[in-house]
Amino acid sequence: MINKDLLALPEKAGKVVKDGEFPFAAVGLSHGHIYGMCAGLISAGATLRYVYDDDPSLVAAFLERYPDTPVAKSLDEILSDKSIKLVASADIPSKRCSLGIKVMEAGKDYFADKAPLVTLEQLDMARNAVRRTGKKYAVYYGERLGSECGIFAGTLIERGAIGRVINVIGMGPHKLANGEKRGEWFYKRETQGGILIDIGSHQIEQFLHYTGNNRATVTSSRIGNYNHKEFPEFDDFGDCNLLGANGATGYFRVDWFTPLGVKPFGDGRTVIVGTDGYIELRKYTDIGVEDIGNNMVIATNDGVEKLNVNGKIGLPYFGQLILDCLEGTERAMTQEHAFHSAELSIIAQNAAFDCKRMIR
Amino acid sequence: MINKDLLALPEKAGKVVKDGEFPFAAVGLSHGHIYGMCAGLISAGATLRYVYDDDPSLVAAFLERYPDTPVAKSLDEILSDKSIKLVASADIPSKRCSLGIKVMEAGKDYFADKAPLVTLEQLDMARNAVRRTGKKYAVYYGERLGSECGIFAGTLIERGAIGRVINVIGMGPHKLANGEKRGEWFYKRETQGGILIDIGSHQIEQFLHYTGNNRATVTSSRIGNYNHKEFPEFDDFGDCNLLGANGATGYFRVDWFTPLGVKPFGDGRTVIVGTDGYIELRKYTDIGVEDIGNNMVIATNDGVEKLNVNGKIGLPYFGQLILDCLEGTERAMTQEHAFHSAELSIIAQNAAFDCKRMIR
Repeated sequence: MINKDLLALPEKAGKVVKDGEFPFAAVGLSHGHIYGMCAGLISAGATLRYVYDDDPSLVAAFLERYPDTPVAKSLDEILSDKSIKLVASADIPSKRCSLGIKVMEAGKDYFADKAPLVTLEQLDMARNAVRRTGKKYAVYYGERLGSECGIFAGTLIERGAIGRVINVIGMGPHKLANGEKRGEWFYKRETQGGILIDIGSHQIEQFLHYTGNNRATVTSSRIGNYNHKEFPEFDDFGDCNLLGANGATGYFRVDWFTPLGVKPFGDGRTVIVGTDGYIELRKYTDIGVEDIGNNMVIATNDGVEKLNVNGKIGLPYFGQLILDCLEGTERAMTQEHAFHSAELSIIAQNAAFDCKRMIR
Repeated sequence: MINKDLLALPEKAGKVVKDGEFPFAAVGLSHGHIYGMCAGLISAGATLRYVYDDDPSLVAAFLERYPDTPVAKSLDEILSDKSIKLVASADIPSKRCSLGIKVMEAGKDYFADKAPLVTLEQLDMARNAVRRTGKKYAVYYGERLGSECGIFAGTLIERGAIGRVINVIGMGPHKLANGEKRGEWFYKRETQGGILIDIGSHQIEQFLHYTGNNRATVTSSRIGNYNHKEFPEFDDFGDCNLLGANGATGYFRVDWFTPLGVKPFGDGRTVIVGTDGYIELRKYTDIGVEDIGNNMVIATNDGVEKLNVNGKIGLPYFGQLILDCLEGTERAMTQEHAFHSAELSIIAQNAAFDCKRMIR
């Protein structure tokens, strides 16, 4: 039996500020992730003060979810409102960087959906802007930050439950036809970035976090378009090997082949092997058993436990981010962790071996 | 719902010859796999006619399991007995090749435990001997051939259940302290070969089989000794990327970090992604649920099914091998598949990046 103290759940994440203490705006609604980002911030006490997008249909859809949100007339209206502490955005990936720089130059912190940027030039500009303005370019790597089992796995590793982490395998399959209409930008390399940037960045962030690395190397990467010839610039497959500065190894596979029979958007998994045990996360479904998320298995020298932590952990990231913005700290994530995850995903994509060229 | 015909179980494998029609000998008992090899052959109708090993204690242990087996006085006694059709061996890996060549030169087929050989020089000698003698150098890659769910996964792929296979991830964790006393040879590179040869060869064989490739390339590989400094030549970790000639991709991790809390020797998994679905194998345990083997999940556009095929499929490999030996066919496995799996495992091991050098 694994010691109960080792598996003790932390206090569930709650509000960290009072109503009105942390007003924010949602700008750039192209990806549905904006809803998770707003919901997370609101659950931690933030106040949704404005919404804005160039595209009125995206604003209209947003208002169905958050009907009382004031619609800004322009981005400038938001940037010039001194009360706004943070701008959250799930704009088209290629546009996230220029928006972020404007936001930070207006003296506000920025909170981008992953992938936060799609080229190394954008990364340089963003890094410079952070240095210049002293503001944050935070990134919502939701496959860990928005996953209660993903958060709890980190806690277990910190408690030493599985010893030194030596390997992380991530599987990030996704469903392409998910009832969600995707914009043209989604299928173009220039605007979406490519699979290793778009959904690979989640995986790289997890590798760095679980292995305790602030530096890693992409040792090999591959992309492919195996079955979507109608979208010639689209990658339906990608994989990548990572090597952390501390000697930990990683591999991940991302793909758009989740079949329609699977209820959630994908059967995301993480397998973390340590010197004294391992953890498996079944993030969105216990496939073939129950379509509930946040399933985890922990195996150590003392035993094996299968847990479900759905609704039990909350998402502490959002409260930590709010406090970081208010107090200038880095509890939620360091700026460099956010940027290095993006950097490695861009390197992985740019250097990838393209399997498409060998498929007959 | 997935169509029932698609998931229909094949007839369970049974005997293919009558008593006495296929006499064989067990020679070289260093690895416990010899028991699975003998049991499989016997279940398919073969007759265990002799046992032999230089080490009397290994023979004594064998006789506890198979008390009526005649003990040969020497290897020559077996090789000169014209009635013996096949010699099965789980000798020390580095000795498997020279034994095999003797067996084939004596006009008998050879059946080696994996890994069948540990150097490219041995491979060349074995290939030449097969050409010269016309006999078989068959290999027991037990993590598929001895796994009912592993066999059935191949059947499902042949039936087109998941479309074109594009990626295979194999996890082959093993328990080091498994109640089994391991000889010194096990910890030495020269005699055991290294982790990518010893247990990686299973994974490579599975990749080739499930992706339908007869040729593949090792695109990167790593080994490491993270936590067993007392065995300086031992690898406790290895991983490898494969690229099939048809464009399918693969990754596997093998390790000796299965914690004692896990009942079976390891929580072996295979995840096979196709263009129309995926299959996950939980070969030896449904971890955290039940310690029964041969669990599988199949997800397609029509639904998701979780199956347990333990005791329902049998191990058709053994009967196929016996018929191949008698009839000169290659139903069980082609010679080149057996050799190329070994070849890639040796290349992966020889070319591996050694993570040990970066661990502090």
